[in-house]
Formats: sequence, C-alpha cells, structure tokens
Amino acid sequence: MKLAVSGKGGVGKTLLVSLLSKIFAESGYSVLAIDADPNANLAATLGFPEPEKITPISEMKELIEERTGVQPGKTASFFKLNPKVDDIPEKYALERNGIKLMVMGRMKKGGSGCYCPENALLQALVTHLLLARNEVVILDMEAGIEHLGRATAKAVDKLIIVVEPGRRSVETALRISKLAQDIGLPNIAVVGNKIRSQAEREFLISNLPGFKFLGFIPYDQAIVDADLANLPLLDSSQAIINEVRNIFQALI
Amino acid sequence: MKLAVSGKGGVGKTLLVSLLSKIFAESGYSVLAIDADPNANLAATLGFPEPEKITPISEMKELIEERTGVQPGKTASFFKLNPKVDDIPEKYALERNGIKLMVMGRMKKGGSGCYCPENALLQALVTHLLLARNEVVILDMEAGIEHLGRATAKAVDKLIIVVEPGRRSVETALRISKLAQDIGLPNIAVVGNKIRSQAEREFLISNLPGFKFLGFIPYDQAIVDADLANLPLLDSSQAIINEVRNIFQALI
Repeated sequence: MKLAVSGKGGVGKTLLVSLLSKIFAESGYSVLAIDADPNANLAATLGFPEPEKITPISEMKELIEERTGVQPGKTASFFKLNPKVDDIPEKYALERNGIKLMVMGRMKKGGSGCYCPENALLQALVTHLLLARNEVVILDMEAGIEHLGRATAKAVDKLIIVVEPGRRSVETALRISKLAQDIGLPNIAVVGNKIRSQAEREFLISNLPGFKFLGFIPYDQAIVDADLANLPLLDSSQAIINEVRNIFQALI
Repeated sequence: MKLAVSGKGGVGKTLLVSLLSKIFAESGYSVLAIDADPNANLAATLGFPEPEKITPISEMKELIEERTGVQPGKTASFFKLNPKVDDIPEKYALERNGIKLMVMGRMKKGGSGCYCPENALLQALVTHLLLARNEVVILDMEAGIEHLGRATAKAVDKLIIVVEPGRRSVETALRISKLAQDIGLPNIAVVGNKIRSQAEREFLISNLPGFKFLGFIPYDQAIVDADLANLPLLDSSQAIINEVRNIFQALI
C-alpha cells in the first residue's frame, strides 16, 4: 500500500505519518516513510538520532540517473519503468524500530533553486517501487498544494488529507481534493486533527460533505507540552495513539 | 518599505500580513499586499469579496514579458530593471479599505507544474517597484523554505519570521534565517504568535538566541471562534490588534 499525507501547513501531517508508521511497523508491516517536504521534520519526529546526517534523495541523483537512464531535472514522464529502483530503500534508507526512512532533501543554500528535480526523482521512485502485501510506503508531503502541480504523489493508492477545525484548513483540503482528481488520484480520505469538541467535529463534517473521514484525532495538551519540553512526541498522548490505531484499522 | 512574512505552515503568517496591512493603511500608508502562496488565503482574510475572481500575477505573463523584455519561466537574474513595472499594482491590483492586493496565482490544475515562473515574475516585480516614503509592500510567503531556494523575496528590506511555541516552528525559523542570509537578506526579525503564557514566550526567546523579536501576539480563542463561525477575523480580537499595533510601531 502506498499512502501520501497532505494538508495545510501546521495541521499535523508529520505527526500522523509518524504514528501511522509506528503502528504499521508494530503490526508487522515493513514500512518505508518518506519525508517529501524540503522543510523536513519527519526524522526528528520519528526519533531518528542526528536527523541532519541522513543522506537525502536529492543527493542520490547519479544513482537514480544510472538506474532510470534519465538525467534528473527532466519531467517525471520521461522516467522509464525500472525494477532496479526497488533496492534503493533497502540500500539507502535509515532504519529504526522497523521503520525505513528516506528524506527527499533539504534546501542547502538560499537561492539554489526550486525542488522540481527532487520531486521528479521522488515521483519516479514512488511509481516504480513494487510492494509486497505486507509493505507500506507513507509519504509526508509538503504543506499546501504545489506538490499537486508537480504530481509528486500521483502513484499512491490513497491520499490522506489532514484537516483541523478552521476555515483555511478546510479550503486547502477542498483545493487538494480537486487537484488530486486532476492527476488521477480519486482515492481520497480525510483525517480530522486537534479536535476539541463535538462542535469542531461537526464543523469539519458539514464543511467537507461527501468526504470519507478515517477518524478524528483529539487535541491533547500533553503533546504540546512534550514538544516544548523536548520530550519524544510519539508516546506522549494515549488518546491520540488510540485514534490513530482506529485510522490504521480503517486503512487496512 | 518592502516586507516579507515567512514561517512554518499554520503559524499565522496570513493573519499578521492582514493586520499589518490594515494598520499601515489606517495610518496613512499606501499598502500593496501580495499573496505569494499558491494556496492563497490572503484575499479571504482581508475580507475581499469573491477572492477567487482576482486576476493572479501568473495570468499577467504577457504583460510582464512586454515590460521586462524577458520570457516568463526564465530565471529571475535575466530580468532587466524596468521602471514600467511600477504601474502594475496601480492597474492590476484590487483595492479595498486602502489596501491594494495582488495574488501570485492559484494552482489551476493538478499536474500543471511548479510555481517557478510565477516566483520569478514576483521576484522581478518586488525588485523593480520603486516606493515612496509612505508606501509599503507586504509579501505573504509560501509555508516553509522553498521560496528561499527561489529567492523570491530577496529584494525586501526586512524578512519577518513568524513562530509559534513549538519546536518545529523554531527549527523552521532557524532554517529560514540561514537561507535568507545566503540570498543577502540579513535584516531579519521574529514575531511570536499564539502565546499563551510567559513560559511560552521564554521558550521562543531562549530557543532563538540573537534574534530580534518585534512582538509576541497572544493566543486568543475569540479569533478561532470567529473563524469557525465564518465571521471576519481581523476585528475579532482586540488583544491581537493591540500587539500588532506595537509591531507596526517597531517597524516604522
């Protein structure tokens, strides 16, 4: 199964990707988590030590050119199918607690350009990975909608849009949903996050009619406090973990 | 004065840009607010009716090619200085309550590409605008750090980074600051947002040593409630307005 998690900035994409990765891994799945945001936070949230030392995909250009026969920077439609991409996560991802992690790349220098080549590489990788039944790939997408212009995630089986109770978050979800359909991604589901009340839950349901909700993750001050105290986030809220377990069940 | 507001997704960039625009306008400045985020929310937050009908900069390509002599899509370094760019806001921005608004552009269709050409156009526009003493341009940047790779805002006088009490927001601010210096933008200031306590204020100060703080905007449930009730945001919290007035004073 290939999943991508998208949404407005700050809604909680990285936390959901991290908890889903953890729960899939604990349930016996082989998990490949990919941070597709140049403002990369997934490694830190997953608790990888020294996240800045992970080799990003953007520094594997020669490797991917060798494998796909195409120079990075070209649009993704020119990449040819090549099963040899399959060994890249095995060889180049870091692993911790049963989760393999790759990061698309960090912006190394201001003025050095956009992330189009990296997105093209990532799209090729996600498209060409052949997964066994117990394997799952989870992409943590960049905030907002530009990745949909680039169609980075077009090869995923399901796009999960995270929303929080707020008008801009809902508007972003509607834009993402529309753009996702343009790139042939009709399998879309929504996760509500930071839910404080029944009214907030109903706000999301009534403002996103026709959307399938996988779950509603409660707001929990414990996770905010853990963050400020620089404690690990993933174990800090049992209420949040329980709901992400329900979301995991809904996915499988 | 040319300002750009940056930060992690969800920290409150658009709200700060909107309130600063309002306060500058009320103080007699001529304000040009530019939404540089393809996931555009500024028009709605400023209360412009029918925000989807505003002509985005991305649809002014022929105009800007005519004025700059360069085909859009080329890197911005090829744009030549041309004072005729100066009349573009006058002719093409919408105006409401003394605020002129331009939007960079919306993603119209999934898979249609990245926002590099639009960012190049915007960079040229911001670079070439000649401002009188009582004129101010405020850019609402895309969430995260990619716009710094593109150097979209390199011609601004000051980059304001919005942070909220949270580790990822602080890490993003540090990355933005580093990348901004690469593109020759050393004039950086920080605004703390959603501050609930003295401890949260101190968290930001201690985690961003050496940064100049323009102010600390309090968390106010009133603005969240106004958003959920679909009421105008800008008048919903006197506490927030008061602190943004202080930030305005610190800027001028």
